[in-house]
Amino acid sequence: MTSQAPTFYFPAPRAQKFCSSCGTPLTRRIPPEDNRVRDVCDQCGAVHYQNPRNVVGVVPVRGDRVLLCKRAIEPRYGKWTLPAGFMELGETTAQGAARETQEEAGAQIELGKLYTIIDVPQAEQVHFFYLAKVTSEDLYPGPESIDAAFFKLEDIPWSELSFRTVSTTLRHYVEDAKTGNFPIHYYEIPEPEAK
Amino acid sequence: MTSQAPTFYFPAPRAQKFCSSCGTPLTRRIPPEDNRVRDVCDQCGAVHYQNPRNVVGVVPVRGDRVLLCKRAIEPRYGKWTLPAGFMELGETTAQGAARETQEEAGAQIELGKLYTIIDVPQAEQVHFFYLAKVTSEDLYPGPESIDAAFFKLEDIPWSELSFRTVSTTLRHYVEDAKTGNFPIHYYEIPEPEAK
Repeated sequence: MTSQAPTFYFPAPRAQKFCSSCGTPLTRRIPPEDNRVRDVCDQCGAVHYQNPRNVVGVVPVRGDRVLLCKRAIEPRYGKWTLPAGFMELGETTAQGAARETQEEAGAQIELGKLYTIIDVPQAEQVHFFYLAKVTSEDLYPGPESIDAAFFKLEDIPWSELSFRTVSTTLRHYVEDAKTGNFPIHYYEIPEPEAK
Repeated sequence: MTSQAPTFYFPAPRAQKFCSSCGTPLTRRIPPEDNRVRDVCDQCGAVHYQNPRNVVGVVPVRGDRVLLCKRAIEPRYGKWTLPAGFMELGETTAQGAARETQEEAGAQIELGKLYTIIDVPQAEQVHFFYLAKVTSEDLYPGPESIDAAFFKLEDIPWSELSFRTVSTTLRHYVEDAKTGNFPIHYYEIPEPEAK
């Protein structure tokens, strides 16, 4: 049979139907010596664990301005964001953050210290933002960005930001910039309800 | 055809052969608008991304002693370790760290602050250790532990520890305990070579 290439591509859905090792349909149940439901293969024995993913990015700063990118992809097409994306195999969080900055903004940076670490359990993600110093005015936004531009802190388009991890990281940055002291922040989104 | 359950189970290997959406054999190549090789399905269009995983654990402290678990599983069977394991979907790093402590040591704890964040690119992992206060002498090690025991800091079995993320976290703890100040530490293992 001739296999025809599809006209579009989509990420593998979190729901898994077939074993990646032997192609057999999977069963959802608790494997031996485990305590939660997994996708297991009763043919070859493979257990298909799924785990949260990391999103890595930067707060790219040039003097009193911060660099934002306008998203050319869903979700949040057209919203302004910090350069960030999924961490890839074989890289560190810092390397991933620098790579995403290059891919999305084409900006020259010196990577600084880790600044925010944000648990986002509803999205099954952990976000990491590093501080970064932008060393040139030249920007070359990649295919995932409509635009890339510097904003003075007082001109950040708060109502046009992409994600809460971005807006809270920027809010921490604006606050810390008043003192010049940038401690590491870690928190959870959404904030847990008071008990 | 009657499918027979296997006599053993194994985690899904990182190498993926079949599409989890439609069961078709996968091709390794760069999908459109991407820049790295992925496992893609030319039948249904699914792209099977793989990303680093997070390991979450604690430094469980009771007065001048730290709680360690003796591993009952490979790798590093029989070595002493801090309670830690893979972060699961739907939980925060803190929730995962507390869960692993319960599962591996059966210890009562009050979770404290985030203490070490360690990139381990060779293992395709990021490790997080929280400080924790053990609130009872009672320990109920689970099936992944041969034993669980308290060690005075001067009696930590350094040559019998499981992983470098564990030994370096404990080394930071012993050092910081001298001053009583426990700042957050983030670093990479192995240390990058000097340029």
